[in-house]
Amino acid sequence: MIHAAYARIQPVVRQTPLLSSPFLDEIAGRTVLVKAECLQHTGSFKFRGAYSAMSGMERAKRARGVIAYSSGNHAQGVALAARMHGTSATIIMPADAPQMKIANTKALGAKVVLYDRTREDRDEIGARLSEKHGLALIKPFDDPLVIAGQASVGLEIAAQCEAAEAQVLVPCGGGGLTSGIALALSKARPAWQVHPVEPEGFDDATRSLISGKREENTRRDGSICDAIITPSVGEITFPILHKYCAAGVVVSEDEALQAMALAFSRLKIVVEPGGAVALAAALFHSSQLSGDTVIAVASGGNVDADMFARAVVR
Amino acid sequence: MIHAAYARIQPVVRQTPLLSSPFLDEIAGRTVLVKAECLQHTGSFKFRGAYSAMSGMERAKRARGVIAYSSGNHAQGVALAARMHGTSATIIMPADAPQMKIANTKALGAKVVLYDRTREDRDEIGARLSEKHGLALIKPFDDPLVIAGQASVGLEIAAQCEAAEAQVLVPCGGGGLTSGIALALSKARPAWQVHPVEPEGFDDATRSLISGKREENTRRDGSICDAIITPSVGEITFPILHKYCAAGVVVSEDEALQAMALAFSRLKIVVEPGGAVALAAALFHSSQLSGDTVIAVASGGNVDADMFARAVVR
Repeated sequence: MIHAAYARIQPVVRQTPLLSSPFLDEIAGRTVLVKAECLQHTGSFKFRGAYSAMSGMERAKRARGVIAYSSGNHAQGVALAARMHGTSATIIMPADAPQMKIANTKALGAKVVLYDRTREDRDEIGARLSEKHGLALIKPFDDPLVIAGQASVGLEIAAQCEAAEAQVLVPCGGGGLTSGIALALSKARPAWQVHPVEPEGFDDATRSLISGKREENTRRDGSICDAIITPSVGEITFPILHKYCAAGVVVSEDEALQAMALAFSRLKIVVEPGGAVALAAALFHSSQLSGDTVIAVASGGNVDADMFARAVVR
Repeated sequence: MIHAAYARIQPVVRQTPLLSSPFLDEIAGRTVLVKAECLQHTGSFKFRGAYSAMSGMERAKRARGVIAYSSGNHAQGVALAARMHGTSATIIMPADAPQMKIANTKALGAKVVLYDRTREDRDEIGARLSEKHGLALIKPFDDPLVIAGQASVGLEIAAQCEAAEAQVLVPCGGGGLTSGIALALSKARPAWQVHPVEPEGFDDATRSLISGKREENTRRDGSICDAIITPSVGEITFPILHKYCAAGVVVSEDEALQAMALAFSRLKIVVEPGGAVALAAALFHSSQLSGDTVIAVASGGNVDADMFARAVVR
């Protein structure tokens, strides 16, 4: 399924580079390679899964249009993938989502339906619109076609790095990217280890891997790492994470900001806070890792200028 | 010579991606492709020419060490290329160069010799050190091996873009990158046009292409586009520019800053002011261009956090 998804998306996704800097190696005490998915279309890996889901769908179903819930990166990925398939996308977004993300999603041709996070239920709105117009729901992570699309990041890393052993660090929200990469590498690089990385206070995946069952976060917002804040990992993604991943790594928000600043000065890429947690783990949690090579996925770069300036000017 | 240089440097240079965004296409009114050389090792294309020169040199000469003058990107490119060749690099830098560029050059293993720009002559210092220690001078642009190395950017662009016609815009200081790309594309894509791009007040290449002889800039500093400020284009680069390039394009500093902000928000790359002038021309000087496709080289990303924040927070 992963290879079939890659065959569908490979002509349209950007094969993002694996970047490095001797200055980062020195901080980490080992070779640090950064998979720059912030350079993907729409600024995050989400385009891969969205395009995989849409291209893997029956033509007639797709032609009726798709629907998704998202306040950010998934919204833009679905909007662009729908436009490329010549179908319509309806995106249900919270009315208090960043104006720029709403504007970008509209500019990519999607119909945006805003809802009041405090008084309305997005699932109810989505179910009603989906039924009324026959729209196909594109879930952000808990969908095999989406996971298979994100897995292409793992296939590309395996093709780009020949290290015999490596620790792969992946920003983890719902677990779509992490489980996809772990699945792909379990075949392509069975000696490597994949670690989910999360911000402090939102370490549900790390706790779930320890307890062996899906743990929830108590807080639902209030993190600068908005792109990877979910109540818990998915029903489909968790068993994959449990089977194929090594222990989670938890970083502070300050470490994520420092990693953004180093990605700016040393790699010349723009990474958002949630997308920078894996690099932060590579640089500042060396003692939790082993081996000569660490590969950190920089999963997205959709960050406001003010937040970015806050990270780099310090 | 260009193909021989590429064969030598190809195993070590990063093949930088050709990025795009529908938002940039909309501003320009045509397809805009951005060659992200800011993602090259040491943060600029300069590594290509430096490595080409060093790898094309006699082994015994190289083993005695190399020397270069630079306040910025060339210094870092030479330092890294020397380290990779296992030889020593001496870089003559003005004492008032940005501390970070001096620190980076030293961290890459180079010996840095500081001089007082107002009282000392760097050519005299360089000649003395070169003679005393038998060091080989690596010029920043007026050297066939350096130009042949920079030409690899043109070969990569030709391999990455199949457009029948395109306008290629290149930030132009001494003309090493522009002449290299123009030479490479004159064979690989004879129907394309290459335009040098410069900031206002430092438009010597543009005026030289009009007059047919090397014109000089009256000012020697005072631009935020420090990476591409030279007194004039080179003796070797000018005849190449004259034979193979279309008219120059001149942009304002404010347009360069706007292009940096759009590269940040739409492409997720860090571009320095001098490296952003070609993208600025693509976006804001549409009327001086023709055709459906424009390719802008983003030549470097070595910019201080304060300057970058100034560009993006506006």
